[in-house]
Amino acid sequence: MTSFIDLDRSFAWRSLISLPRPRLADLLVPDRIGACEVAMGAGLSFNWSASPVDEKILSALGKLADELQLIDKYRLLLEGEHMNTGEDRMVLHHLARGQLGKAVSHEGRDQRGFYEGERQKAADFARAVHGGRIRGSSGKAFSTVTQIGIGGSDLGPRALYLALERWARANGKLRMEARFISNVDPDDANSVLERLDLESSLFILVSKSGTTQETLANESLLRERLKAKGLDPAKHIIAVTSETSPLAGNPGYLASFYIDDFIGGRYSSSSMVGGVVLSLSLGSEAFADFLAGASSGDRAALEGDISRNAALLDAMIGLYDRNVLGYPCTLILPYAEALSRFPAHLQQLDMESNGKRVNRRGEALAYQTGPVVLGEPGTNGQHSFYQLLHQGTDPMPLQFIGFLEGQTAGDCLVEGSTSRQKLNANLAAQIVAFARGKSDPNGNKNFPGERPSTLIHGNKLDPSTLGALLAHYENKVMFQGFAWNINSFDQEGVQLGKLLAKKALSVLADGSAASSGDSVLDAYAKMLLGGKG
Amino acid sequence: MTSFIDLDRSFAWRSLISLPRPRLADLLVPDRIGACEVAMGAGLSFNWSASPVDEKILSALGKLADELQLIDKYRLLLEGEHMNTGEDRMVLHHLARGQLGKAVSHEGRDQRGFYEGERQKAADFARAVHGGRIRGSSGKAFSTVTQIGIGGSDLGPRALYLALERWARANGKLRMEARFISNVDPDDANSVLERLDLESSLFILVSKSGTTQETLANESLLRERLKAKGLDPAKHIIAVTSETSPLAGNPGYLASFYIDDFIGGRYSSSSMVGGVVLSLSLGSEAFADFLAGASSGDRAALEGDISRNAALLDAMIGLYDRNVLGYPCTLILPYAEALSRFPAHLQQLDMESNGKRVNRRGEALAYQTGPVVLGEPGTNGQHSFYQLLHQGTDPMPLQFIGFLEGQTAGDCLVEGSTSRQKLNANLAAQIVAFARGKSDPNGNKNFPGERPSTLIHGNKLDPSTLGALLAHYENKVMFQGFAWNINSFDQEGVQLGKLLAKKALSVLADGSAASSGDSVLDAYAKMLLGGKG
Repeated sequence: MTSFIDLDRSFAWRSLISLPRPRLADLLVPDRIGACEVAMGAGLSFNWSASPVDEKILSALGKLADELQLIDKYRLLLEGEHMNTGEDRMVLHHLARGQLGKAVSHEGRDQRGFYEGERQKAADFARAVHGGRIRGSSGKAFSTVTQIGIGGSDLGPRALYLALERWARANGKLRMEARFISNVDPDDANSVLERLDLESSLFILVSKSGTTQETLANESLLRERLKAKGLDPAKHIIAVTSETSPLAGNPGYLASFYIDDFIGGRYSSSSMVGGVVLSLSLGSEAFADFLAGASSGDRAALEGDISRNAALLDAMIGLYDRNVLGYPCTLILPYAEALSRFPAHLQQLDMESNGKRVNRRGEALAYQTGPVVLGEPGTNGQHSFYQLLHQGTDPMPLQFIGFLEGQTAGDCLVEGSTSRQKLNANLAAQIVAFARGKSDPNGNKNFPGERPSTLIHGNKLDPSTLGALLAHYENKVMFQGFAWNINSFDQEGVQLGKLLAKKALSVLADGSAASSGDSVLDAYAKMLLGGKG
Repeated sequence: MTSFIDLDRSFAWRSLISLPRPRLADLLVPDRIGACEVAMGAGLSFNWSASPVDEKILSALGKLADELQLIDKYRLLLEGEHMNTGEDRMVLHHLARGQLGKAVSHEGRDQRGFYEGERQKAADFARAVHGGRIRGSSGKAFSTVTQIGIGGSDLGPRALYLALERWARANGKLRMEARFISNVDPDDANSVLERLDLESSLFILVSKSGTTQETLANESLLRERLKAKGLDPAKHIIAVTSETSPLAGNPGYLASFYIDDFIGGRYSSSSMVGGVVLSLSLGSEAFADFLAGASSGDRAALEGDISRNAALLDAMIGLYDRNVLGYPCTLILPYAEALSRFPAHLQQLDMESNGKRVNRRGEALAYQTGPVVLGEPGTNGQHSFYQLLHQGTDPMPLQFIGFLEGQTAGDCLVEGSTSRQKLNANLAAQIVAFARGKSDPNGNKNFPGERPSTLIHGNKLDPSTLGALLAHYENKVMFQGFAWNINSFDQEGVQLGKLLAKKALSVLADGSAASSGDSVLDAYAKMLLGGKG
C-alpha cells in the first residue's frame, strides 16, 4: 500500500533535521572521493564526495526515501498509475524509451507499441528524406530541418541537438543541420527564415493540442514566406501533434507524427517531439541510442539502496540542500561547450515540474519545493558569476558535469597541457576551491569555502550518455516531487498569463472596444501596444 | 566630505525596515501606472508601478540614497577617484562614452582623449577593412570577424552584437558577420573555426593582460589552423590589450587596439573590447551611437531626485527586494529575442560586481549583497520556468523589458493580432498576473500573486537604446555596490580556482611528478584527466 504524505509529516524528516551538519572541509578527505561514486547508466557516474552529506545524513536520507516510498511510487508511475493527479493522467515518458515494468495500455492500445511505432515511422521518414525520395515542392532535396515549437517542444530538442551536433559532424553522422524557431517575437522567425534556402528546407510544427498561440503564429508567418517563394507549404511542413488535434492527418502537412497526453512537454524529448528532429538531423540510429541510454538511466533509478541509486541520491541531497540547509538555488555547470543550452532545458524541467506550492491534494505546503535552477558552461562561468559563488553572502549548491574526452578532433599543447586538460583541471580545481576555500587575513582575498558541489562525469558526451544524463535529471526531479508530495507533471501556473494575454488581445480583435474590462491591464497594454491595446 | 559606511549603520536604513509593507494588489491601481514612469535616456523608460514600493517607502529609499551619498560617490568615480579600492584604481568606463565631469588624466595623459583616440583608430581600421584596403594573407577581403576572449571580453560584446545583428541586417548596416570563441573547451573553437572560410576571416584576440589562459590556448589553436591553410596569422589576427601586455605592438598581430586598467572586463563593452568587434561588424557609426546612448543613460543617472533617476531607483528597489524582503534572486525577462544573451551578460555584470561579502575595508558584512541574476526571453520563459515564478514557494522580483517595435520587417495577422502584438500583450498580461494573482478554491489553480516586477520599455532596440539599457544596468549595479559599501570593481573571487587549476596542471607539465602536493585535488584531477593528473 503506497501512501502519499507531506515531507514534514514523516518520521525520517524529523530525524534528518536533528542531525549535526558536518563541515565540508572536514569531510573532504582523499578516500571519500572514490568511495562516493555511483553508476548512472551508460557509463556515467555521479560523485557526491563534495556534498555536505556524511554517513549519518546519508542513512537518514535513505530512510526518508524508504518511508516516503519513492521507489514504489516510481514503479507505480512506470506501470501506468495516474501520477499526474491534477489532470488525472498516466505519466509515460519512460515507456517511450523502454519497457521497465508490466505492459501499459490505454483504450486497448499497448502504449509501448504506440511509441515504438511512431519512432519507427520517424526513422522510415528520415531515411526517405535522406535518400532524396521525399523532396520539397520544387524538387530539391531537403538539407535543413527547422523545428517550430515552444517550451518543451523547443528547449529539450534544441539542447539535445546542440549537445550532439559536434559529435555528429565529427563522426560523419550529421544528416541535416537543424534550426529552431520558438518565440512569438517575429524577430526570431524572421532571422531564422531569411538565412534558409526555403526550397531545401523542411519544417516540423510541434504542438500537442494544435492550438499553441506562439507556434500557430509562427506557422502562419512560415506559410506566407513559403508561398511568396512559390513553394507549397503542404510539401514542406510536417506535424508532431496529438491524434485528436486539428493538425493530425491534415492534408496541409507532408506527414504527421503522434504524441499523447501521457508525456508532458518538458519530458517529451524522448517522444516524437525530440524524435523527429533528431532522427532527421542526426539519423535514427543516434536517436535510438539516445533512448537506450536514457532507458539504462531509468533502470539504474530503480535501485532500492540510495547509495547505489544516483538519481535518488542526487534528489535527496538536493532536498537536504533545499529544506535543511535552506539554499534557494541550484547551479548546473557543465564543463562542455556542447551542453551550452542544457541548463536552460533543466530550468524548464525542474522549475516547471517542482515550482509548486500545494501538495497533490491541493493543500498549501509549509516547506519549500523546487529551487531556482541556472547555469552556463565552464570555464566561461569562472570569468563571470563564479565570483558570487565563491565570495557572495549566500552559499549555494553546485553540480558540475565533465567528460574525459571531447567531441571534436584538434587540440594543442600550450605550456605543457592541452586545452582539454586545462578545461578539466579547472573543473577539479573549482570543486576543491568551493569546498575548502582559503583563509587570508585580507578579507577581500579570503574564501570561506563550505560551498557544496556534486559531479557527474563520464568518458564522452554521445547519444547514449546524453540519454542517461537527461534521464538522470528527469528522475531526480520526479523523486523530489514525490518527496515533496507534489504533482510534478502539470503546470497550472502557466494558465493565468495566457488568459490575461487573450483578454488584452481581444480588444484589438474586435476593433471597436477600447478596454479589456480591466483598467490595470488596459494601461499596461496601451503602454506596450502603442495606444492600440 | 564623502563617507563610506555600511548600509546597516545608516539612520535611513533603520527607518526603512520599520515601514509597513504594502500589498501589491492594493497598490496596483490604474493611475499608478502612468505616475511611475522615469526617463532612462535615449527614449527608454523605467516603470516601477508593479514594484512593492509605496510613497513612504519611496521617500525612505530616497533618504537612504542621500544619506549614503550615492550620487556624490558616482560623481567622485566620474572624476577619477580610486573607487576600485582593492586594486587602488580609477573606474572610467563612463569616460569611454562621454565626459560628464572634469577632465581625468593618468600619467599626464587625458583619459577621455585616449579612449576617443582608440575609438577613432578602430573606426579607421574598420573602414579600411570594409573598403578592402586591408585584406587577408591570400589577398581575399575579410568577410567575417571572430572575437576570441572570455568573461567580459566575450559576454558583453556577444550580447550586444546579437542584440543588434537583426537591426543591422534589416537596415543594410551589417558589414561583417561576427562570431565568438570563448571556452577553453576545444569543442568551442573547433566548431566555430570549421565553419569559417579562414582566408576571409579576421580574428580579434582580447586579453587585457595578454596572459589569459583560455584565450591564449584558443589563439594557439587558431594559429595552427591558419598555418595549416598556408595563411599568415600575423595578417589575420588583431589584438585588443593593454599597452604593457606582450601582445601590444607585437609584429605577430595585424594591429593592436588599447585598453587600460581603469575599465574592468565586465564594463569593457564601451572600450575597445566591444568597440573593435562592433565597429567591424555593425560599422563605427553604430558603435558611436551606442556610446552616445550609454552616455545619455549615464547623464540621467546623475539626477539627485530618486523619483527622476531610473538607475538609482531601480538600484534602491533592488536593495529593498534583497535586504528588506529577503529575495535571493532577480529575474531579467526581455520580451525581445534579440536580447537572448543579455541576461547572461547581466549575470556577470551584477554577480561578479556585487557578489561580495566584505566591505571596502575588507570587513565581513552582516547583510546580504548581490542577488543571483538569471533570465531568458519571453514568451519562451512563459512555457518554461514561469510556473515556479507564479506558483512556487518563494516569490521573487522580476524585471521585464519590452519594445513597441521589432527590428525586422515581416509579421502576420492571426486571429486579429500580429505576432508582435501577441508578444507585448503577453508581457502586459504577465505583469498583472504576477502582481494580482487569482484566487481559486482549487489550490492547484490558485495564484497567490504579490510577485513584484518592474518594466523597462521603449520604442525600438537600436544602438542608442541598447547603450542606454546597458548603462542603466551598469549604474544600477554601481549604486547598489555603493549602498552595500562594497567594491564592485574587483573580482578576487576568481583567483583561487585559477591557482588550483595551475597546480593541477603543473603535474602534467613536468611529466615526472605524480602529485600536485594536494591529495584531494589529485584525486579529482585523476578522475577528470584520465589518470594523468
